[in-house]
Amino acid sequence: MKFLIVGGDAAGMSAASRAKRHMPDMDVIVLEKTEDVSYSACGMPYNIADYRRNIEDLIVRRADVFRNKQGIDLFTGHQVDSIDPKNKIVSGTIRRKGKPFEFIYDRLLIATGGRPIIPQLSGFNLPGVLALKNLEDGRKIKAFIEKHTVKKAVIIGMGYVGLEMAEALRARSIAVEMVKPGATLLPWMPREMAAVVEQELTANQVGLNLGCKIMRIEKNGGLLNVFCDDRILSADMVLVAVGIVPNSELASHAGIETGVSNAISVNRKLQTSDEAVYAAGDCADAFHAVTGKKTWIPLALRANRAGWAAADNVCGGSVELDSVAGTAVFKVFDLEVARTGLSVEEAQRHGFEPVAETIKTRSRAHAHPGAESIWVQLTGDHKTGMLLGAQMVGREGVAHRINAAAVALHVNMSIASFSQTDLAYAPPFGPVWDPLLTAANQLIKKII
Amino acid sequence: MKFLIVGGDAAGMSAASRAKRHMPDMDVIVLEKTEDVSYSACGMPYNIADYRRNIEDLIVRRADVFRNKQGIDLFTGHQVDSIDPKNKIVSGTIRRKGKPFEFIYDRLLIATGGRPIIPQLSGFNLPGVLALKNLEDGRKIKAFIEKHTVKKAVIIGMGYVGLEMAEALRARSIAVEMVKPGATLLPWMPREMAAVVEQELTANQVGLNLGCKIMRIEKNGGLLNVFCDDRILSADMVLVAVGIVPNSELASHAGIETGVSNAISVNRKLQTSDEAVYAAGDCADAFHAVTGKKTWIPLALRANRAGWAAADNVCGGSVELDSVAGTAVFKVFDLEVARTGLSVEEAQRHGFEPVAETIKTRSRAHAHPGAESIWVQLTGDHKTGMLLGAQMVGREGVAHRINAAAVALHVNMSIASFSQTDLAYAPPFGPVWDPLLTAANQLIKKII
Repeated sequence: MKFLIVGGDAAGMSAASRAKRHMPDMDVIVLEKTEDVSYSACGMPYNIADYRRNIEDLIVRRADVFRNKQGIDLFTGHQVDSIDPKNKIVSGTIRRKGKPFEFIYDRLLIATGGRPIIPQLSGFNLPGVLALKNLEDGRKIKAFIEKHTVKKAVIIGMGYVGLEMAEALRARSIAVEMVKPGATLLPWMPREMAAVVEQELTANQVGLNLGCKIMRIEKNGGLLNVFCDDRILSADMVLVAVGIVPNSELASHAGIETGVSNAISVNRKLQTSDEAVYAAGDCADAFHAVTGKKTWIPLALRANRAGWAAADNVCGGSVELDSVAGTAVFKVFDLEVARTGLSVEEAQRHGFEPVAETIKTRSRAHAHPGAESIWVQLTGDHKTGMLLGAQMVGREGVAHRINAAAVALHVNMSIASFSQTDLAYAPPFGPVWDPLLTAANQLIKKII
Repeated sequence: MKFLIVGGDAAGMSAASRAKRHMPDMDVIVLEKTEDVSYSACGMPYNIADYRRNIEDLIVRRADVFRNKQGIDLFTGHQVDSIDPKNKIVSGTIRRKGKPFEFIYDRLLIATGGRPIIPQLSGFNLPGVLALKNLEDGRKIKAFIEKHTVKKAVIIGMGYVGLEMAEALRARSIAVEMVKPGATLLPWMPREMAAVVEQELTANQVGLNLGCKIMRIEKNGGLLNVFCDDRILSADMVLVAVGIVPNSELASHAGIETGVSNAISVNRKLQTSDEAVYAAGDCADAFHAVTGKKTWIPLALRANRAGWAAADNVCGGSVELDSVAGTAVFKVFDLEVARTGLSVEEAQRHGFEPVAETIKTRSRAHAHPGAESIWVQLTGDHKTGMLLGAQMVGREGVAHRINAAAVALHVNMSIASFSQTDLAYAPPFGPVWDPLLTAANQLIKKII
């Protein structure tokens, strides 16, 4: 049996390794467009932050290890152009040589990931206008900073990647201006909590330009000018971080169904509309634990997990993946910001009657030195009393606390039940009533 | 209606405040044996650790606030000696005056807490042999250290309190020897993880004397000699921390049922065998989320929660408390140690077929600087595949991570389901696969 995998990042290489472990005699072929496989993409901002660290350190396992130690037929620099599902043939181009190739398969896994959105505006193709998705992007950014001794940067977009890169660039003493057309920072958060993030950014000299429509980028001598409707921001480097889209065209052109956010539609076994073709990772969708509906939340854990499950099923298993809760955490300078489940606005959009409660409490017990503030928002459904989502911000005790709410969402726990869970307490680590419990106790009053 | 409460610590004062908030006209009377109410008992080791901090800082709310602001009839220094449930009368002694008192009640809450076990051996009543439970104990220890310039201490017992006090005393540059008859440190932990704790204690110059039967304590000049079967440990101060027992005699002498560990037996509404009498806090038992059976796990969160629930029910509500999962966390110098649910041995004792997996992983992502080791043990039931318990040790990322497993225990989640939960990931806070998930992935293989 030939198991062909398109894409050699988290989902693809997880699947390849797993399949080979299950069935050492199976032909496992991976076609990867770039020269890199198996690296920590999420680690790039932290690596870029430190000039002493080599970007190659992020490689978890080198291509030759997959080839020689694991027996995977891994072809890097192989760009897949089309899939013929009827004849089970994949065609593409060897990038370095410009030569075509073809592979046949019995089972195919599409793990093509996502790509950064680049606005179709003038100047976004100028040198020094960069985006961050794969390791090649990371190399380019790091090399650009060093070669051009970047002193000022503009970051377009204020999502996770933009915020992590703001911290990374400030760590290298680069002046940072962030800009986006939307009027609100982190619109999925309650304003009180977004204000905490805003304050942290401002305290770290990150300029925030909200509600600025971006028109074009122009080169002016050594500088790049980002023209907005009401201002011009100039910089040595422009980072485009306005989000990603799934690389699903390969699938859709082959007649494979796509759905929410144009991601490839998969069932719980990771099968696409063509039962011989699986999809996993940032290119594929998932079921949401709270709504029960399809969602597209491209994150690393899911990619790894889906890669494994697809391989298990290709190898004859019958693994059905559970839903995603949309749990995420990111660091903004000294702040931890975390979420799981639905925001109030998302809950409304999905037909719930959201009721939310935001509390501010302490990260350590009464009178324990070194306590910091922690903010928690819990959202529940007025009709059913069910927990819908949680968000947290604080300097400590946020990143892992969110997981308690995430587990609760997987079992559609009521806020009343959640408020009774037995969470850990010791003075150095929190108040007697965990911040999540205090929020739940408050929220119950609004729901009963 | 007269709501009488015996004991003015966590459970008692939570109940009193709650009742008065629900029904401002209700007579709420609290009888407290000591002069202190509403203080952070768990914070005492950290306060004792720091000579600059005043032990009185641990008081959360002063007695006069309860009296004057909340209208609670709070009597401190009132020792209750007996309950007459037939005539609904409580009798006791005003300690300072040695005078008797009597109170009648419509509803009674017994919130008498627990007391440290003091071995019935010679010398345990000597000055300088101290235990730590209430604020008065904390004052005594702190005063003793300062007055006698304690240089060496022996701690009898190696549970949470003993370990926290070892850290506290070392912070004051006091030499510490710990001693207990049992041969194993933290017997509920896997040896691999207990060894990490042992190493941390040793690295902080805490002497560990395991398997030493304690015979007696003798005073020798200015020193206290702790005589064991095979050695003599001498110190300026001896701390007895071998555990606590519930103060349930008041209840049992009144014919109220006690059960597991001699704690007062209560239903989910916190009612004792006498329906007019409630019990809450360290003196009362609870249902265990995993076994479904009664258990006695005296911890602060439960005490607060039970106090509230008892008051809700006294005020006409019908609140049924959920089970406890036995979640606990404590700090041992720079280590975080946490547990929830059953240990392997406890699982065996309760008729499960425990299968456990212990893993060692990292607290941060691949190549992220500053990562520390994290150890996780997950225990599951071979028959049902259900998660039974989790334990963690590490220098960061342990204290709040345990809560994800705690929530899972509340809903009797299978290990397979737990392994699919969507836990947060970002490189500064953990690996892609959260340590709990890695442990679950490994454990599944032993169960299928």
